Amino acid sequence: MMLSFEDFPPGHFGTFGPRRVTREEILAFAAEFDPQPMHLDEAAAEKTMFKGLAASGWHTAAMAMSLAVKIRPFGPHPLIGLGVDELRWMMPVRHGDVLHIEGEVVELTPSRTKPQGIAKVRWTAYNQRGEAVYTFTPIGIVPRRPT
Amino acid sequence: MMLSFEDFPPGHFGTFGPRRVTREEILAFAAEFDPQPMHLDEAAAEKTMFKGLAASGWHTAAMAMSLAVKIRPFGPHPLIGLGVDELRWMMPVRHGDVLHIEGEVVELTPSRTKPQGIAKVRWTAYNQRGEAVYTFTPIGIVPRRPT
Repeated sequence: MMLSFEDFPPGHFGTFGPRRVTREEILAFAAEFDPQPMHLDEAAAEKTMFKGLAASGWHTAAMAMSLAVKIRPFGPHPLIGLGVDELRWMMPVRHGDVLHIEGEVVELTPSRTKPQGIAKVRWTAYNQRGEAVYTFTPIGIVPRRPT
Repeated sequence: MMLSFEDFPPGHFGTFGPRRVTREEILAFAAEFDPQPMHLDEAAAEKTMFKGLAASGWHTAAMAMSLAVKIRPFGPHPLIGLGVDELRWMMPVRHGDVLHIEGEVVELTPSRTKPQGIAKVRWTAYNQRGEAVYTFTPIGIVPRRPT
């Protein structure tokens, strides 16, 4: 698949995954970036509002990126974001969960000066029970079709 | 430091860091979560708009979290976010960069039903030249002062 800005369809963009979440990677990510009890220690996590070990939200964000980047929607053109709107964590992500993401194009704005445009795709990550656990809407720079 | 919702001062919240970014961790994070040329390969990165190897934006986000979490502003209460507003990447983060973050309280909303409130703190990450490279505004759940 190699998409240019002109090819972006409003609406459903695609479904990507799965990625299985392991206990080991939850602990490793948390130790490096988010060393809090609910991400590091099962007994301590039971006593928090998470009611058990849960992945750092930033780990979930990184795992969702790993699914989005695998699709290489723009061929050799990199997936570059200016930022992210509407990032929300709705449910804990546990080890053993199997995540996939679904994308929906919500906004397309052509550049007036460069051969590119801004595409906003709302991505939602679901677990194996179909529960939405995380959503984010990156503001992506997308190249126009070569002329 | 142990802050309750009542103690949150509007305005400047604090300055935290530093964290030095290494080439090895840029490559390791990218290999796991964001395997694109500008994050993985110096020669290929030179040909992109980044003009050299740059950390994944999600790696920068995780590093900023690692600085924010170290302050433990709520004592034993965890740093829990419902989500993030206004996440923006302004400049590439390079290996050798030394980051720190500065926080500013931008919104405080007490809960009407629970002994807690919502605090929005706008965090900005700066490099060693004082350039703002990244900003995010987590929507945090903060406990009220025990009565």
